[in-house]
Amino acid sequence: MARYIIGVDVGGTKIATGVIDKSGKLKKKVILPTLSAKGFKVSLQQVYNSIDEIMNLSKVRKSDIAGIGVCAPGPLDPIKGIVHNPPNLKGWKEVPLVGLLRKKFKKKVKLENDANAAGMAEAIWGAAKGYKHVFYVTVSTGIGTAVIIDGKIYHGKNGMAGEGGHVTINYDGKDEVCGCGNTGCIERLASGPGTVKDLVKKLKKDPSNKTSILDMADGDPGNITMVMVGEAAREGDKLALDTIKEQGRRLGIWLGSMISLLDPEVIVIGGGVSSLGDLILRDIKKAIPPHSINIYAKKTPVVLAKLKRDVGIFGAASVLM
Amino acid sequence: MARYIIGVDVGGTKIATGVIDKSGKLKKKVILPTLSAKGFKVSLQQVYNSIDEIMNLSKVRKSDIAGIGVCAPGPLDPIKGIVHNPPNLKGWKEVPLVGLLRKKFKKKVKLENDANAAGMAEAIWGAAKGYKHVFYVTVSTGIGTAVIIDGKIYHGKNGMAGEGGHVTINYDGKDEVCGCGNTGCIERLASGPGTVKDLVKKLKKDPSNKTSILDMADGDPGNITMVMVGEAAREGDKLALDTIKEQGRRLGIWLGSMISLLDPEVIVIGGGVSSLGDLILRDIKKAIPPHSINIYAKKTPVVLAKLKRDVGIFGAASVLM
Repeated sequence: MARYIIGVDVGGTKIATGVIDKSGKLKKKVILPTLSAKGFKVSLQQVYNSIDEIMNLSKVRKSDIAGIGVCAPGPLDPIKGIVHNPPNLKGWKEVPLVGLLRKKFKKKVKLENDANAAGMAEAIWGAAKGYKHVFYVTVSTGIGTAVIIDGKIYHGKNGMAGEGGHVTINYDGKDEVCGCGNTGCIERLASGPGTVKDLVKKLKKDPSNKTSILDMADGDPGNITMVMVGEAAREGDKLALDTIKEQGRRLGIWLGSMISLLDPEVIVIGGGVSSLGDLILRDIKKAIPPHSINIYAKKTPVVLAKLKRDVGIFGAASVLM
Repeated sequence: MARYIIGVDVGGTKIATGVIDKSGKLKKKVILPTLSAKGFKVSLQQVYNSIDEIMNLSKVRKSDIAGIGVCAPGPLDPIKGIVHNPPNLKGWKEVPLVGLLRKKFKKKVKLENDANAAGMAEAIWGAAKGYKHVFYVTVSTGIGTAVIIDGKIYHGKNGMAGEGGHVTINYDGKDEVCGCGNTGCIERLASGPGTVKDLVKKLKKDPSNKTSILDMADGDPGNITMVMVGEAAREGDKLALDTIKEQGRRLGIWLGSMISLLDPEVIVIGGGVSSLGDLILRDIKKAIPPHSINIYAKKTPVVLAKLKRDVGIFGAASVLM
């Protein structure tokens, strides 16, 4: 009967909403602006509108919809269905989103944080299909992770588990304070902005460096982005290649520790960094075995995520599978 | 009917075997030497003998015994019931211990590594009684951990999960190579021998230090043990106090990361270090909140293990509960 799930990916700037059938086919999607700057009431109305709109556009009968899955930036409580106060959603404070949507649409509703949802989608429809114990990593402006155990997202006591991006690998690292306040988190050391920060530091020490990244950034280190670094690396720029090599090495060392602790069946790498493909995967894989006590670390597959652009919608829907 | 479990703790020097009833009462125990230097056959016979002996001594009828739980030093495979090749059990190589004991005693048999078993015993009968999600840590000559999820030991794909002692918190730390080959593992940085190593390094840099630890060690830094450091700290020795303070800080930083990743209900600290009590617990607890992104980190209880001397026997038995 109920063959469809609505997935709502609430982001800082846009809300991506789709109807997915249980085989993982995206039937239809709509994108609305979040308008969080206009206040919480406006952006909540945008969430409502996006669901109304997708039901109209997709022409799926309401009785065919099993439920509504929502993903949003953390911190949030997936167990109680409450969005705490994400820095990316201004004005949202302790919003009982699950309750609100359940009341409005009379459907089953579930809430999950971005990284957990994306990991679950990969486990159901993507690169980790068929695996039960999955460690999912998304490397973009931050580093998010999902710990999937026995095919379910592991939430821990307070629904806050899975913040592997804030595991420190350099506890006394000077100048390596993470956005979270901790020192030496892998997010600080290997996310996009963290990687660019270290590159700029290197450039300042060696201003004669003839990297093409600086040209792309119109000569201003403040303009450098990870996309530029990737582009320059593909063109053979040495500083860019060295930077990605080191980013891969750090991720590999950290993943070696994660394998020691969690012994997953597979590691999936998603987020912006996954578009670097083999350029970074090679160094990640190289660094893992010498940095894990697990004798099977070398055999643990490390693969790129499969779900790209619409991973948020798939992620949101996956929590209802 | 079957009210009793036999727990066999196979160690490098001795085999401790006991009969435990399901309420957690140790009815009787025997200790035999492992004799692993005399070869695998001899030490396996010692395991058999210890079980025969405990059945005779305890006068429990065979029909009252639910099964035999065994714990041994890793690496081992708890799923397949095979002891791989523990450095502490010479001559043991790919021993199918579960199969051998099952054949000999016609009972249910289960195998678990030391740290996992001890953690499970704490969860059933000790400091973590009543909790489902437990992170257990034993700090002695090494650092072992157990990840308990939904009341069960989490084993991962290959039965190798839970090696949290080999999570690095200092990936490029010079002179901080761990026994496992990785750099900056918390085991290298905060185990007994690791802590003593750093203390000796400090002493060599500052030979005028008037620490009482050196007197206890007859003036030879090579004789220093963690027990001496603890004793000196209790007497107010500054170097000893500073050393334990730093050990606690490192453990707390690492546990902050573990909470970010696993959001456990409780953290239990066992092993030799737990005898330091508040002396170390204070600094562990202090370091956790600023080093975790989990907003509940401060509220996560960090408690000392309850099962002391016989934790190995309880641990071995607990895997059959």
